[in-house]
Amino acid sequence: MSDLDIRPATPADLPAVVAMLADDPLGARRESPDDLVPYHAAYRRLADDPNQRLMVAVRESRVVGTLQLTIIPGLSRRGATRSVIEGVRVHADERGSGLGTRMIEWAVDESRRLDCQLVQLTSDVSRTDAHRFYERLGFTASHVGFKLTL
Amino acid sequence: MSDLDIRPATPADLPAVVAMLADDPLGARRESPDDLVPYHAAYRRLADDPNQRLMVAVRESRVVGTLQLTIIPGLSRRGATRSVIEGVRVHADERGSGLGTRMIEWAVDESRRLDCQLVQLTSDVSRTDAHRFYERLGFTASHVGFKLTL
Repeated sequence: MSDLDIRPATPADLPAVVAMLADDPLGARRESPDDLVPYHAAYRRLADDPNQRLMVAVRESRVVGTLQLTIIPGLSRRGATRSVIEGVRVHADERGSGLGTRMIEWAVDESRRLDCQLVQLTSDVSRTDAHRFYERLGFTASHVGFKLTL
Repeated sequence: MSDLDIRPATPADLPAVVAMLADDPLGARRESPDDLVPYHAAYRRLADDPNQRLMVAVRESRVVGTLQLTIIPGLSRRGATRSVIEGVRVHADERGSGLGTRMIEWAVDESRRLDCQLVQLTSDVSRTDAHRFYERLGFTASHVGFKLTL
């Protein structure tokens, strides 16, 4: 495999990123790759927030993965700062290539560099392959994740 | 019950807030109420971040509850902004008084006011009473929460 670059996403990456968000059993119902307007607005909110890292993985000038890392200060655990990983997607052509591992390793290394004491994420209960993947990378399924749609 | 005020935490609230974080089966092992230095440093990080709300619930000038609300913009779900609730604690004297419900309702109302489309939180698998509490408030246990300690 040729070299991989993990770098901050730019507005020009949004069509490829949104296509990956939509190419997913859950994302297919939730995303609108033919209307990028809400995604550009969200990109600006992310770019304005210094505690956000919206990243893309690029191989041969092609966007093949994405994730979002959020840094959250807090009081609990003796004032621990934690990071949260959201929106992890690997392009269908790259699944099984180790790209997901590379991206999560990037997020863990970046969290450590930013003095986080904890990395956390939630994964839909239906994504059992993803659960095994995170456990292989050292994560513990110690919590129940609750959501309320407004 | 006398009137309850839910307001942003100040540095003067930290001893009471940390005492509540520590008065908990999990928190007892994780917190250091006799050394507030790391909590004051974390408070400053929270106060500097416009996407954080560290709140206390106060009854008769006494801090009886706390929670942290974080606003997280994102690309997925058509550029949805979500909120995350962390560090929910109710003073032992107030359990069963409906205070937890009042605090979560505050967080949901504030999330709606800030145009969030989703409210989420994770709860340790051992906190089964908390799980029933969140389900009664309309949350769905749709996700598995993974953590990695650094």
